[in-house]
Amino acid sequence: MTTFTFDIFGTDKKARRGRVTTAHGTFETPCFMATATSATVKGMFPDDVRATGAQLAICNTYHLMLRPTAERVAQLGGLHKFMDWPGPIVTDSGGFQVMSLSKLRTLNENGVTFRSHLDGTAHELTPERSMQIQNLLDSDITMCFDECTPHPATHEQAAQSMRLSMRWAERCNKAFVRRDGYALFGINQGSTYPDLRLESAEALAQLDIDGYGIGGLAVGEGQEAMFATLESIVPAYKAEKPRYLMGVGRPDDIVGAVLRGVDMFDCVMPTRSGRTGQGFTRRGTLNIKNARHQDDMRPLDETCACLACTRYSRAYLHHLFRGEEMLGPMLLTLHNVQYYQDLMRGLRESIESHKLDDFAAAFHEGQARGDIDPVS
Amino acid sequence: MTTFTFDIFGTDKKARRGRVTTAHGTFETPCFMATATSATVKGMFPDDVRATGAQLAICNTYHLMLRPTAERVAQLGGLHKFMDWPGPIVTDSGGFQVMSLSKLRTLNENGVTFRSHLDGTAHELTPERSMQIQNLLDSDITMCFDECTPHPATHEQAAQSMRLSMRWAERCNKAFVRRDGYALFGINQGSTYPDLRLESAEALAQLDIDGYGIGGLAVGEGQEAMFATLESIVPAYKAEKPRYLMGVGRPDDIVGAVLRGVDMFDCVMPTRSGRTGQGFTRRGTLNIKNARHQDDMRPLDETCACLACTRYSRAYLHHLFRGEEMLGPMLLTLHNVQYYQDLMRGLRESIESHKLDDFAAAFHEGQARGDIDPVS
Repeated sequence: MTTFTFDIFGTDKKARRGRVTTAHGTFETPCFMATATSATVKGMFPDDVRATGAQLAICNTYHLMLRPTAERVAQLGGLHKFMDWPGPIVTDSGGFQVMSLSKLRTLNENGVTFRSHLDGTAHELTPERSMQIQNLLDSDITMCFDECTPHPATHEQAAQSMRLSMRWAERCNKAFVRRDGYALFGINQGSTYPDLRLESAEALAQLDIDGYGIGGLAVGEGQEAMFATLESIVPAYKAEKPRYLMGVGRPDDIVGAVLRGVDMFDCVMPTRSGRTGQGFTRRGTLNIKNARHQDDMRPLDETCACLACTRYSRAYLHHLFRGEEMLGPMLLTLHNVQYYQDLMRGLRESIESHKLDDFAAAFHEGQARGDIDPVS
Repeated sequence: MTTFTFDIFGTDKKARRGRVTTAHGTFETPCFMATATSATVKGMFPDDVRATGAQLAICNTYHLMLRPTAERVAQLGGLHKFMDWPGPIVTDSGGFQVMSLSKLRTLNENGVTFRSHLDGTAHELTPERSMQIQNLLDSDITMCFDECTPHPATHEQAAQSMRLSMRWAERCNKAFVRRDGYALFGINQGSTYPDLRLESAEALAQLDIDGYGIGGLAVGEGQEAMFATLESIVPAYKAEKPRYLMGVGRPDDIVGAVLRGVDMFDCVMPTRSGRTGQGFTRRGTLNIKNARHQDDMRPLDETCACLACTRYSRAYLHHLFRGEEMLGPMLLTLHNVQYYQDLMRGLRESIESHKLDDFAAAFHEGQARGDIDPVS
């Protein structure tokens, strides 16, 4: 039997270098997850996802309960087999998506009733049902069902929302079926109010949780407020548990959050941007659809080892996007995921060698330089 | 220097087993090309296309002259480099697409003037310009610029159209720049009228062409008329030159045409079907979007070695298509291209072993059985 563990074997100031062991293998931290919302990383073969260095995938309770349903996934052998991802899987609890995607939703103490954004059918999500669904999916890391407090929120609104999430967290803690190698993460809420964040962290400390989700950030409060919130609350978490900043973010968000002690990240940005033509490079972002690339024989990023950069010119990628050819999003997604994984690898190595500040400085310098000059 | 050659080293009745050598390598015949209309096989990485056994790609003059333009492709080093396809490439002449896709087209003795279906800009295609474009693209096999006679056509219409194409073929023959390893194929026309097909074949025999395109078929005349036309005209071609049945077709069209002496094929069917949910198997076709597959743990085709069949269930592929996830078309396209290449490999091996009739019988028996029964 495998026990769920988090081993921290290096630090650089507040940043930690660790390894998480789950029922389906290990992943190195700080890590950026492969976003597989509906049991697929959009536009990528799982082998190619793994080849970028991604070890942990994140799927979504809300999407999967509606289609193909958790019961069907369970009958088909669980998510790992279903989607050809034998490695560790996190599932989000559905709390965020039910409020942002579903129709006619009603939230009360018990949970949320809503209509599917796909076909209008009626459904209910409660802490207990979310735990059950994530169990059926065979998720290695189950997230507590919470309400993501909207931004902006008054102190009173944020307090009420956070306290509801903490009562739900207690119910999740009771309903979660403990199994070797499987983990339950609480989710810290409280908007950008330090006192509420602390109250939430203290409530979570009473539960048998294996890690902290940091929720309710990257919802419009801005990077400065997000970093200030992390600085105020991260030290209040139990140091031996992993910290997961949910839904974050841009490369500079990640670098800043790692400096502030965050271990885990997920965001749709590399894959979504890959479909719309935004590429991430060591010199910032670029829009491959821009005409400046149409005669450019150079790769997207000459320092990148991905297929898009080693085999193709910017001119070709531009051509694919202009023609709305599938291969464009396929290649740019692959590149963006590789870029994020390279960034995480760089962060991990620099923590190990106690050179994180140097790494961050070089990162910011590269981003500030901006994209290479167009061909004349 | 590489000379363009076609070596026939096996026959079974009318069917031939051969190998074509071009400036960019060889391909085995009978072959089915990888359809890369706009310099990409839709939804596939070139490495994956090659891994199915495809050796020859086909790109399109009409599409590429409009975007990114032939001059730009030439400046970027030619099609092989542009699209990461170092192997042999055929280009269609644009004659078919200019009539089916463009707007406000006017055909006269000189050629066709038209407006782009992309942006309405005015363009002209003539035999000479088509040769020039295909040269700029660095195509290994250049197709003569012709008019694809519509179906149905009266004998008079078909005769006029075919004779125009033959006058254009003479101009192509003059304009084509001969280079070692590069070939010019004529295109036989004449609708389903044996006398016109013969007149066309005799006209082509006067030219310095390296192979025969068989045009104007699979345009609505039906398989019986297509096979009858092949039976009447193929024996009139010079036996030592390859025969390419353009735009064909369904698996049973291909098997029947190989039996009638055809060496080369291309069709959008495996890739287009892969995007819309139609899968090809040894037991006919299936629609993966059908609800009968939603709980089916079995692969699409248990005898297929492709990624889609070795890693995923029908239930998962169904899930991807229902969710309009890119991975669905990616996997099904990969499978369909693999299916077609496996079919061609089977045809080649059965010609070598003089068992083509047995192979064709087994093929038809499998197709007639229909898809596996649904799970209960």
